[in-house]
Amino acid sequence: MTAPLHEAHPTSPGRRLPDTQAGMRRRNLARVMHAVGADGPLSRAAIASRIGLTRAAVSTLVDELIRTGLLEELGPERPGRVGRPGSALTVSGRGPAGIGAEIGVDHLAVCAVDLRGEVRARAVRHGTNRGRPAEPVLEELTALVGQVVAEAEREGLWAAGLAVAVPGLVAPDARTVVRAPNLGWRELDLAPLLPTGLPLTVDNEANFGSLAELWLGDDAPRNFLHVSAEIGIGGALVVDGRLLRGTRGFAGELGHVPVRPEGPACVCGGRGCLEQYAGEEAVLRAAGLEPREDRVGLLGERAAAGDAEVRRALRGAGTALGIALTGAVNLLDPEAVVLGGALSGLAPWLLPSLEQELERRTAGSACPVTVSRLGPQGPLLGAAHSVARAVLDDPAAVAERG
Amino acid sequence: MTAPLHEAHPTSPGRRLPDTQAGMRRRNLARVMHAVGADGPLSRAAIASRIGLTRAAVSTLVDELIRTGLLEELGPERPGRVGRPGSALTVSGRGPAGIGAEIGVDHLAVCAVDLRGEVRARAVRHGTNRGRPAEPVLEELTALVGQVVAEAEREGLWAAGLAVAVPGLVAPDARTVVRAPNLGWRELDLAPLLPTGLPLTVDNEANFGSLAELWLGDDAPRNFLHVSAEIGIGGALVVDGRLLRGTRGFAGELGHVPVRPEGPACVCGGRGCLEQYAGEEAVLRAAGLEPREDRVGLLGERAAAGDAEVRRALRGAGTALGIALTGAVNLLDPEAVVLGGALSGLAPWLLPSLEQELERRTAGSACPVTVSRLGPQGPLLGAAHSVARAVLDDPAAVAERG
Repeated sequence: MTAPLHEAHPTSPGRRLPDTQAGMRRRNLARVMHAVGADGPLSRAAIASRIGLTRAAVSTLVDELIRTGLLEELGPERPGRVGRPGSALTVSGRGPAGIGAEIGVDHLAVCAVDLRGEVRARAVRHGTNRGRPAEPVLEELTALVGQVVAEAEREGLWAAGLAVAVPGLVAPDARTVVRAPNLGWRELDLAPLLPTGLPLTVDNEANFGSLAELWLGDDAPRNFLHVSAEIGIGGALVVDGRLLRGTRGFAGELGHVPVRPEGPACVCGGRGCLEQYAGEEAVLRAAGLEPREDRVGLLGERAAAGDAEVRRALRGAGTALGIALTGAVNLLDPEAVVLGGALSGLAPWLLPSLEQELERRTAGSACPVTVSRLGPQGPLLGAAHSVARAVLDDPAAVAERG
Repeated sequence: MTAPLHEAHPTSPGRRLPDTQAGMRRRNLARVMHAVGADGPLSRAAIASRIGLTRAAVSTLVDELIRTGLLEELGPERPGRVGRPGSALTVSGRGPAGIGAEIGVDHLAVCAVDLRGEVRARAVRHGTNRGRPAEPVLEELTALVGQVVAEAEREGLWAAGLAVAVPGLVAPDARTVVRAPNLGWRELDLAPLLPTGLPLTVDNEANFGSLAELWLGDDAPRNFLHVSAEIGIGGALVVDGRLLRGTRGFAGELGHVPVRPEGPACVCGGRGCLEQYAGEEAVLRAAGLEPREDRVGLLGERAAAGDAEVRRALRGAGTALGIALTGAVNLLDPEAVVLGGALSGLAPWLLPSLEQELERRTAGSACPVTVSRLGPQGPLLGAAHSVARAVLDDPAAVAERG
């Protein structure tokens, strides 16, 4: 009837494979890849004990993964151990790579991540994209992707797919930007404008940021609300280690949670939305500053330099965030709230009032608020890793294509 | 580290069985039960084509399910069809039954539901439980359960388990009531006080109500926010057909979403929470009425009789609900909001202002608000069905016990 609330996008990890013998084999290939990825190098016997299959079954699976270039054999383990020496296996540093791209308001970025999770190639172009027509922006992005793919190929990798993070809402088809107000884009299908020849997935930057947090964060919780910001306030919900997308793919719109119901009118049609208090423009206005290109940078600089007006404005934004997050914490009961993206740079001046408000309103059950270690890199890394992880989640699909 | 946000309770449907040959067999037994339950009576061939297994495989599974009393053979299909006549299979109207119980503020209720989903026995005791010690209340409930189990046994059923709905927060152990303010209970383990000999699951009434909506509602959405009320405002989130429980099992606390952040102080420690505007006591106060035993009944009667003060108070409650739901809809992007439990009876006077507020604030993306057909019966039915559905979800477990 409607799309499932959990990730329906093509690169979604954890999607169910059919429950047949063939499906079981595919899932077991994925288990081997994940075991070696998480804890490798590992011998066949060690893999077998980790995933609860017989050594014979694991050997068959491993042979297939070596043949398709996803695993590498490191050669026999050091002698001196009892029993027949096993050969340690590791995830290949050649083979498939995930290409991630980010369309920011003030930059374009592309990177390649191998199956080990290492960034192997990277390209960035600075300069505003605000108000530019989409065609030249996407032409530049296509060129940057070509550059990164070529660099990855020189390293013995091949691009398994492209995932693009955009600051806006994306349709469930995972290629159409429904609206990206800060770019001025509306109902725009990116696929024909990104002729890279790679399988394409487009998603909201906050969604990719939250996935990066889940996959790459230290001790990342499996259940959290990720809050980020460029101009608006973005949010993403991770539940049981999966992104909650919503019926139309719009879940996580924290920016339009009412904070003061009779407050200022918002572009969304409501009044007193969080963005009216904690969005960049609102904070700049409250601080009496004029917008310039790098707005968050401006706020961070001034706050760090001790500008009392800017600090007061950020304190007010923190209070508004605390009120909106009280509602979210009551509804979702997450393990943590994680501030990511541009917000992470402003955390020192937002957090005190935010935490005070949240604690006061959720007495005795306060939810910890943490700051992402990935900072503004989150969405780009999340995009690239989503492609690499889709390979780990279904290695057989790549083998069929490769 | 922490409990998964999705249902971890013992009777949770859809929990994953291990991915082994034996696990696959158990899942396939469940598929046969669900296929016959949804579309039966069905022949073995029809089951095979529905679930994508061979007829031989289905025959083996069906034989096991007949032997353990979960399926019944109706005898050969009518002649005149081409080919060897198949025997139609139906879910047994004898065999295991789910026992559901509800501890309400003003009543106790118990019912037995068979695997076909039919209520086969029922018992109710009216009278307030507010402020009574837990022991006599649970003694009475134990007696009612015994009465319903005995009645079910006279019908050829046997009780597979007991699920109890309570108006409060329940710990992840699914037996301890953390707090039920309207009963005055706190940190109370129900298991020793309900010596029925049956496997026990305790859960929040809004959770069971939302599951009833999911399982029994006409054209029920798979992604919705369920809002109910007795004294407080209860909520439950269903995502992809599963209950979202939260890290500590407390998700869905819509009642403490801030509506007007500088509003009246709330027992939770916050200010201006939804309960301060739309909880029963708040509405009674706003209407200038004294509380009596059946508060919702009182409000409904007066509103139906045209009492302007009560209608005004309910209109205000609807507005507050609309503000809180705007935040929830922005965060979750559900298919629908469903008003259930006691709120369903007040819907005619709550809905106009609620919908107006929600539509105004979520321009162009309004989420439909519907009223549960199950009304106040939802939680009790949800409890009983959760036990019956756990049998359908893992028939092998019952066969082992039976």
